[in-house]
Amino acid sequence: MVAANRQLRVTVWNEGVHEQIDDRISAIYPNGIHGAIAEGLRKYLPTNSLIRTATLADEEHGLTQEVLAETDVLLWWGHVAHDEVADAIVARVHQRVLEGMGLIVLHSGHFTKVFKRLMGTTCSLRWRNEAERELVWTINPVHPIAAGIDSPLVIDHQEMYGEFFDIPTPDEVVFISSFDGGEVFRSGVTFRRGHGKVFYFSPGDEAYPVYFDDQIRRVLANGARWAAPSQGAQNLPAVSNPARDWFSKQDGTA
Amino acid sequence: MVAANRQLRVTVWNEGVHEQIDDRISAIYPNGIHGAIAEGLRKYLPTNSLIRTATLADEEHGLTQEVLAETDVLLWWGHVAHDEVADAIVARVHQRVLEGMGLIVLHSGHFTKVFKRLMGTTCSLRWRNEAERELVWTINPVHPIAAGIDSPLVIDHQEMYGEFFDIPTPDEVVFISSFDGGEVFRSGVTFRRGHGKVFYFSPGDEAYPVYFDDQIRRVLANGARWAAPSQGAQNLPAVSNPARDWFSKQDGTA
Amino acid sequence: MVAANRQLRVTVWNEGVHEQIDDRISAIYPNGIHGAIAEGLRKYLPTNSLIRTATLADEEHGLTQEVLAETDVLLWWGHVAHDEVADAIVARVHQRVLEGMGLIVLHSGHFTKVFKRLMGTTCSLRWRNEAERELVWTINPVHPIAAGIDSPLVIDHQEMYGEFFDIPTPDEVVFISSFDGGEVFRSGVTFRRGHGKVFYFSPGDEAYPVYFDDQIRRVLANGARWAAPSQGAQNLPAVSNPARDWFSKQDGTA
Amino acid sequence: MVAANRQLRVTVWNEGVHEQIDDRISAIYPNGIHGAIAEGLRKYLPTNSLIRTATLADEEHGLTQEVLAETDVLLWWGHVAHDEVADAIVARVHQRVLEGMGLIVLHSGHFTKVFKRLMGTTCSLRWRNEAERELVWTINPVHPIAAGIDSPLVIDHQEMYGEFFDIPTPDEVVFISSFDGGEVFRSGVTFRRGHGKVFYFSPGDEAYPVYFDDQIRRVLANGARWAAPSQGAQNLPAVSNPARDWFSKQDGTA
Repeated sequence: MVAANRQLRVTVWNEGVHEQIDDRISAIYPNGIHGAIAEGLRKYLPTNSLIRTATLADEEHGLTQEVLAETDVLLWWGHVAHDEVADAIVARVHQRVLEGMGLIVLHSGHFTKVFKRLMGTTCSLRWRNEAERELVWTINPVHPIAAGIDSPLVIDHQEMYGEFFDIPTPDEVVFISSFDGGEVFRSGVTFRRGHGKVFYFSPGDEAYPVYFDDQIRRVLANGARWAAPSQGAQNLPAVSNPARDWFSKQDGTA
Repeated sequence: MVAANRQLRVTVWNEGVHEQIDDRISAIYPNGIHGAIAEGLRKYLPTNSLIRTATLADEEHGLTQEVLAETDVLLWWGHVAHDEVADAIVARVHQRVLEGMGLIVLHSGHFTKVFKRLMGTTCSLRWRNEAERELVWTINPVHPIAAGIDSPLVIDHQEMYGEFFDIPTPDEVVFISSFDGGEVFRSGVTFRRGHGKVFYFSPGDEAYPVYFDDQIRRVLANGARWAAPSQGAQNLPAVSNPARDWFSKQDGTA
Repeated sequence: MVAANRQLRVTVWNEGVHEQIDDRISAIYPNGIHGAIAEGLRKYLPTNSLIRTATLADEEHGLTQEVLAETDVLLWWGHVAHDEVADAIVARVHQRVLEGMGLIVLHSGHFTKVFKRLMGTTCSLRWRNEAERELVWTINPVHPIAAGIDSPLVIDHQEMYGEFFDIPTPDEVVFISSFDGGEVFRSGVTFRRGHGKVFYFSPGDEAYPVYFDDQIRRVLANGARWAAPSQGAQNLPAVSNPARDWFSKQDGTA
Repeated sequence: MVAANRQLRVTVWNEGVHEQIDDRISAIYPNGIHGAIAEGLRKYLPTNSLIRTATLADEEHGLTQEVLAETDVLLWWGHVAHDEVADAIVARVHQRVLEGMGLIVLHSGHFTKVFKRLMGTTCSLRWRNEAERELVWTINPVHPIAAGIDSPLVIDHQEMYGEFFDIPTPDEVVFISSFDGGEVFRSGVTFRRGHGKVFYFSPGDEAYPVYFDDQIRRVLANGARWAAPSQGAQNLPAVSNPARDWFSKQDGTA
């Protein structure tokens, strides 16, 4: 968690393809899915937060070394263009997560390269896009990501995502959803990878105005606060070959 | 897990009150809920298994020191008579679980004394008894308790149990259910307590013939095999005050 | 986690018996173990925090309904007088934890009544009191309880606590210790129980000045911040019997 | 777990380089590290088990589609030649694990490509090769992998592996080791990935005759039994797009 008063720096990444090629989607998200998400974060995060956006079409997909170095938490929305994300950028994002950057993967991002690389599994699931009602139930009511969230959080129309969701056992299951058709899904799950915290949150198909919902926006803002690294210096977990009793030379405690 | 060829000794405990006072229940379960459960275990466990039953009305509720000492796995069904279970028997069962006896707690047994003592929480939940369809989804497809079980396992009519279910974080979540009304429930969860393994499985209200369902019976048989202690001697985890290097005196490895 | 600027109210409970009956202990802890712990919390928690102490000898052990209602986090140190803690007070503390009060159980508190009630197990362990060096290693470097803590945290002289430690699988293992004699111990572990967060931290025998160590004090302050409830109203998880579609009547989201 | 009487098919993979280039290692392991491991498995697994070996120098590293299709559990030892393992073979092994093949990764295999791909992290650790005594403590005494294993299991001389070990939170921690120098290590940990079970066990540097130790051999045999898939047909978790109520057409339960 970010310390009180420290600025929280968030980058919202969106492939931004649906909005370019499908008028129905751009009608729902005139400023892009990333625009709607960023707007929600600006509403619910501290006013001194730095909220940026980046898309696939930007140079280096907008995820340069500089941008990532200045990002505490990255949100990721992708769907039809997973394969167009350059492997070098994927490796860069992966490394930054292991160094400590928080990552929030949204909806169809379950199949994005960096999420699959962090999970090590297929990340497969069941799906059906028939505008079913989704109910998001909180099963860990004291988790900071669930603070202020109704249980159930009701989404009138959403794509169904159903189990079996092929992910590793999560560190924490915060939300479980059900759908009109009866399927269930672990819709809010957390993982630690290296020094970084990862939150996957499944609501958010492009065909529905989910990211304008105030409760959904609160979840994302809670997630960003939760995923932010708490400690100053961040680094990749490293191999070391210390001599016997190396720690006795530490100052103070020994 | 019980070793191949070792006899599995199972005791099915039922308070046995509904069947005595309500003709509708005794019509569904003419041999008692325990009778139906035992019948199912006899069908799906190895033929050399020893399947016994015990009820609240039996002397010491049928759970004497001798019976428990000869029980590898105890199944527990209770509902209206939790308070009538003697505290001394509760303490005895609790101790046997910590020594290594497996325990399978069924449905309304979430509120039985020994389960609450093992969990340390209220074990509260939402409920509604309106014969809703329950869908039991497997979220850990390689767990031995899920072997051979459809996902979803469909129960046409069941009482609804819904989250928030106030239990400790389970060691494993095997099943998650949804109901017609949209609620979800962690319906198959495991816990280790001391040397014993605990499986809670929520389907099974007295008003529906759930324990005659072949898939449900397979779950209970799988659960009994899973919960059985694998090692011979069983004992309560104990305090000890060993001298420095006590383990160097062990034979063989040091 | 307590929100920024909200006052954190901490009560440090100590049985306070060693200090009364053993001059060697009162020489180490002239203001009691509770006094040393409270002093450390005052140093590392925000200045507006309210840090109180209470002991076995106080009326109702100092843990009246009023005190507990005004306590966000309770720290508990006990050893020789576990049996003298009144069952009614144990039940009261247990209920407050399930309602949301944080609980930090220290060292020999592994055998205190309320911890055993929350765990449901024997809480047994190995021990040997020969002033061995304890090394406390961080295995979850991004956990807020580990913020600013050396790995290893070196304690020159401590009682050995060794595995097998008979607790349920923790939600999180933050620290693992080793001792001169070679034993290991899960020395910093967390659990959620009901709406409350529990942190067990094993360093701290009465015969050594552990609670004057700045690193140890940081762990306790981190623990208090972590265990504090994040949300305003707190309540015991309750049973409810909602009608179908009860959530559709909620304002706003449905 | 493999069903009683079903043949268990195990393949022991070893890069086999140390034995070729260093007389001290070939003196310890005249039949290769894989030979010693296979010998131990033959001693402790059922006599009808099929135990094969394969090495880096074999065609396709001995891990053809056919071999993997006939392998229930693969053990993996590698150290100096991780980079020489062909990416196509890594992808093949990774997929077979997700389909259900068990994988046991040994010692310096923490850095092998397939383990890093399954974990998603750096898998970094501390190390020091000074023939320290390793004590392997069981912290989950009822886990089948710990059956019949001393706690501590004493290894007189071993390379030190120490925390922080950069792996995801394991599903289960079975063993924790300490070393003469005071470091600790989660030395026996399990993970589920897709339909496959993974066991990492750290003892086993090439410079010491660890794989001739009967207790170590029992751990590996227990691990092979545990990691074997329990169900017949195995397949990769797959995406599907089912119609509403697809499960109502299932035979039998609905």
